[in-house]
Amino acid sequence: MKLTLEQAQKVIAKAQEEAEKIGIPMVIAVVDDGGNLKSFQRMDEALLASVDIAINKAYTALALKMPTHQLAEIAQPGQELYGIEVTNRGRIVTFGGGYPIYLDGSLVGAIGVSGGSVEQDKQVAEAGIKALN
Amino acid sequence: MKLTLEQAQKVIAKAQEEAEKIGIPMVIAVVDDGGNLKSFQRMDEALLASVDIAINKAYTALALKMPTHQLAEIAQPGQELYGIEVTNRGRIVTFGGGYPIYLDGSLVGAIGVSGGSVEQDKQVAEAGIKALN
Amino acid sequence: MKLTLEQAQKVIAKAQEEAEKIGIPMVIAVVDDGGNLKSFQRMDEALLASVDIAINKAYTALALKMPTHQLAEIAQPGQELYGIEVTNRGRIVTFGGGYPIYLDGSLVGAIGVSGGSVEQDKQVAEAGIKALN
Amino acid sequence: MKLTLEQAQKVIAKAQEEAEKIGIPMVIAVVDDGGNLKSFQRMDEALLASVDIAINKAYTALALKMPTHQLAEIAQPGQELYGIEVTNRGRIVTFGGGYPIYLDGSLVGAIGVSGGSVEQDKQVAEAGIKALN
Repeated sequence: MKLTLEQAQKVIAKAQEEAEKIGIPMVIAVVDDGGNLKSFQRMDEALLASVDIAINKAYTALALKMPTHQLAEIAQPGQELYGIEVTNRGRIVTFGGGYPIYLDGSLVGAIGVSGGSVEQDKQVAEAGIKALN
Repeated sequence: MKLTLEQAQKVIAKAQEEAEKIGIPMVIAVVDDGGNLKSFQRMDEALLASVDIAINKAYTALALKMPTHQLAEIAQPGQELYGIEVTNRGRIVTFGGGYPIYLDGSLVGAIGVSGGSVEQDKQVAEAGIKALN
Repeated sequence: MKLTLEQAQKVIAKAQEEAEKIGIPMVIAVVDDGGNLKSFQRMDEALLASVDIAINKAYTALALKMPTHQLAEIAQPGQELYGIEVTNRGRIVTFGGGYPIYLDGSLVGAIGVSGGSVEQDKQVAEAGIKALN
Repeated sequence: MKLTLEQAQKVIAKAQEEAEKIGIPMVIAVVDDGGNLKSFQRMDEALLASVDIAINKAYTALALKMPTHQLAEIAQPGQELYGIEVTNRGRIVTFGGGYPIYLDGSLVGAIGVSGGSVEQDKQVAEAGIKALN
């Protein structure tokens, strides 16, 4: 099962709707099951740094099959995966806002959101993935 | 004058419509006037290599203020800019499919299209930029 | 609204004046609103490492719309953005010396200063951005 | 003997004057005898691609101790240094606009100019290095 562009766009549209609701300009990226960029939108006035961060959050969530805020905990000094952020040519993000996307139980892609606080990014990303349920 | 996300999406939608008309899955990218990614869509079944190529065609058209097929001519062996493809950290593309986007005479961004032959990429990109006229 | 070269040069001249006053050779960089380098000066005897650091501090301040010493706090282990320094291809600096530049309330660029202690870098950068008021 | 910032600035000012005379916005970079950036100016409206190209032309002229238009000839297919543009992590430019800077017969740095045709870039760079005679 593959994530279609139409589905990716639905995810992004829903996430963008949530970002507009809370009034924060966001960058929203969706990658497919190969970790490659599928769809991407940068809202007007969003942080430039969020271009890379959103894409990398999506990559991280896909590549590790976990939300990036879970990685945040185990990537701290003294924790199991301390240092992981440098292992994948700068593409691992160790804070929240990235989530795997499942369809019928299969991992088909991931979303990454950046632009607000970590809590806001998570809220927007979670709204996005609900678009496929 | 800044290219808005809404305008970038219009450009991409129009380009995608053209790609569907000719039946070739394409990757379509739009960058802003700073060369930073604004909007991106990868159609189902499009070439994976086109992810980078489309983004870099858009960057090239913006950064050199010319369609990339014009660069193609002057980047050949013996021509004026031979070797330019390595000068910008791998972001210069020396074949057609990238076009600057102007609004009221101001350069506000660029589109890059990849996935078909160069002629097909050009056709799709040209359809895209017409969306703003 | 765009930052002109003349304005960028004013910012750098003022920063350099401050660096000379405290007797520390500095590297001073200014980027535009796309995060691209606009103007750059390396004072005689300044640290070579500061070439990249100053440019990247300016990029960071622009791309995150905040002074880099504020990022320093939230990028620490256990804090919200821990790990952010690897997310943007080596361009995020998590210590002080980078500041956004505003003109009439619009973000038009950023300054990055490196060469002294963080406090000295901040002092020199702050002097620089005052040149436009 | 070292190139001072004051001398680098003189070179750039003279080059910029020439660029203004011919009405082409240019990017002008000067590196020191270590190939590291010393001074840099991007004129308003200059091509974004020229940021990297100007710096790399200066690096190339310094690192090979020759004007980059001389390298252009020997970097062509079938010539002695064919392929050299990929040998130095993307920093070798194989077309004109970069010149070594000598003081009293010592190589102390180099200038790189980008933004116009190769002939225009050469003209502006040559004007720049005359500032030290």
